Amino acid sequence: MNFSYVNPTKIQFGQGQISSIKELIPQDQKVLVMYGGGSIKKNGVYQQVSDALSGHQWIEFSGVEPNPTAEHLDKAVAVCKAESIEFIIAVGGGSVIDGAKYIAAAACYDGDGWDILVGKHAVDKALPIGAILTLPATGSESNSGAVITKASTRDKLSFLNPLVQPKFAVMDPDVMKTLPERQLINGLVDAWVHVCEQYLTTAAGNMVQDGYAETLLKNLLTLGRDYENHDNDQWRANLMWTANQALNGLIGAGAAHDWATHMIGHELTALYHVDHARSLAIVQPSLLRNQSVNKQQKIKQMGINVFGFTDNENLVDQTIDAMEAFYKSLGVSTQLTEMEHKGTKAEAIDVIIKQLEKHGMVALGESKAITLDVSRAILEDAVA
Amino acid sequence: MNFSYVNPTKIQFGQGQISSIKELIPQDQKVLVMYGGGSIKKNGVYQQVSDALSGHQWIEFSGVEPNPTAEHLDKAVAVCKAESIEFIIAVGGGSVIDGAKYIAAAACYDGDGWDILVGKHAVDKALPIGAILTLPATGSESNSGAVITKASTRDKLSFLNPLVQPKFAVMDPDVMKTLPERQLINGLVDAWVHVCEQYLTTAAGNMVQDGYAETLLKNLLTLGRDYENHDNDQWRANLMWTANQALNGLIGAGAAHDWATHMIGHELTALYHVDHARSLAIVQPSLLRNQSVNKQQKIKQMGINVFGFTDNENLVDQTIDAMEAFYKSLGVSTQLTEMEHKGTKAEAIDVIIKQLEKHGMVALGESKAITLDVSRAILEDAVA
Repeated sequence: MNFSYVNPTKIQFGQGQISSIKELIPQDQKVLVMYGGGSIKKNGVYQQVSDALSGHQWIEFSGVEPNPTAEHLDKAVAVCKAESIEFIIAVGGGSVIDGAKYIAAAACYDGDGWDILVGKHAVDKALPIGAILTLPATGSESNSGAVITKASTRDKLSFLNPLVQPKFAVMDPDVMKTLPERQLINGLVDAWVHVCEQYLTTAAGNMVQDGYAETLLKNLLTLGRDYENHDNDQWRANLMWTANQALNGLIGAGAAHDWATHMIGHELTALYHVDHARSLAIVQPSLLRNQSVNKQQKIKQMGINVFGFTDNENLVDQTIDAMEAFYKSLGVSTQLTEMEHKGTKAEAIDVIIKQLEKHGMVALGESKAITLDVSRAILEDAVA
Repeated sequence: MNFSYVNPTKIQFGQGQISSIKELIPQDQKVLVMYGGGSIKKNGVYQQVSDALSGHQWIEFSGVEPNPTAEHLDKAVAVCKAESIEFIIAVGGGSVIDGAKYIAAAACYDGDGWDILVGKHAVDKALPIGAILTLPATGSESNSGAVITKASTRDKLSFLNPLVQPKFAVMDPDVMKTLPERQLINGLVDAWVHVCEQYLTTAAGNMVQDGYAETLLKNLLTLGRDYENHDNDQWRANLMWTANQALNGLIGAGAAHDWATHMIGHELTALYHVDHARSLAIVQPSLLRNQSVNKQQKIKQMGINVFGFTDNENLVDQTIDAMEAFYKSLGVSTQLTEMEHKGTKAEAIDVIIKQLEKHGMVALGESKAITLDVSRAILEDAVA
């Protein structure tokens, strides 16, 4: 258990916290406010941001789409350069915040921003970012990672760099009041899988990391099972803080990491526009069944400590079945349907495998056990 | 659940990490290395620090005692001023690190350092500190608090300031190999009570904070019960990381805080030189029995989630008894003995109450329910 860990993002958690950004952004810096489809204009968040920035010089960039594309974000990069932007405020969920990270790094680079994603440019400078979270899910508000899509080639890739980690993250649970049900549930599933990627591995014996991961999973299970009562302050606050903790680096410090579900899931989203969280629910149960021998100790531990099962000879299957049943209970499908991939199952699997190969995803998982052949076997069950 | 939280201390965790400090201290800064009684010269830690600092200009200050006194620390303050020290490395446990915090702040102040403890000087500048932890217990390596004693008046007071929080904390579990048993067990008990102070309150419904706190308590219970097998890497790493998490601000963010056990315990240490951890074990069971109506919901939750008890009408008593039995199983007494306070019980209680009154500790606990009369009632059971 050796690691280096720090999380320098200042968390401003609670109702009414958006106004605090005025003290968190240097008075003399010119700000770009980024957001998505405009829901923040309906739910009052835009007004709160605007009020807080009344003493600042700022412009805005809207229309950041889910699974943001480099093509669209490059327009904001050009704005940052032309307008000499010094600080970026991302108002949104993971897509807007990930987009802000790309823009922050690309705005300090003379070449093509996509170079960052393919490893041709190592980020050495970035504009500072502040995040105002409107959708708890990805943890992007206090980590250094971003996932960006190139629309023209359907490549969905990620990069990690401490320079793009937000300086602060405002987490006001009230912003969740107007979220569509689908997004709320996607966030819950996304956070669940984030924990699993850092917990359901071959590693054993890390008592803090495992115990924290089990806490977050139990929270998500409780909140999901209590979904019908989600319209209250405590439910919202607990989901928001749980989803943040799921991917702020803490439970993953010194732990083994899998992320194979994410890597395969990214291809489904890039190819077929499946929601990110749904792509994970499609891949994960099949992947866990495929890897159930390698991961058996941890899956059993999860069955006992998270689901409350007693030890028995079917515990591994019982636990994976319970996870799949949990997704289905939330209305989240666990197979890629024919309507989504528009062709035969065999054709769809071939296309996905080709993209994985193109992106170098040929030995995934904490023990690099998931080769392309293994991914193919996983997809046999995941694709209808 | 409203809070602001950030922990900017960079954690370097694992075997062999002491050497990493050379990259963490600016090359041109003059360093003061502080330590305690010299055990670090026997266990190799001093040599590792010395090797890592071979490119730096540095001097040392040793002899920092447990429950460090302002009188002794002021000598180091004078050294810092005379030698224009720019960075402090604290090599030790909570006493050395707390001492470093006092020195770091007092060295940037023209008046008497004790002014910081009595609130006459608000810290506005401090030398940067790096911590090399040799005794997992207080969490001081990655928080902003310090407890300092004035020997002449037997005042033991605390201060909190983000400017004195260590820039980095090296946590190499190997340093624990040569720790005396008493210190190892004190650390375990200290961490346990730190969690309780932020968990056993009247607050309810914070799922992340409560779940994390229960994880840490379960870890400490498991490690304590497995104490005979403590001589292995995993045991050491788990205790070190658990004790850090117990007081790095995370489980306390957005939670209610008690700290009455600490405030009363500080008086026992200042008056009778009882080990800090032992002072807590003396006060806490009696305090919890006294406050068991106010805190009953959380004590029951602890009984079920930490000790694995089933709900029953004696659950509150059963849980407090189990905590007391846990301390005793580790050889830690839960009463202040006559030999320690040297006088009659009534006299000792009078002296302690007078000190509490002098220090303004007249309404302690998360609901300020612990008045001097309540403290007196608590001490009736805690003092033999």
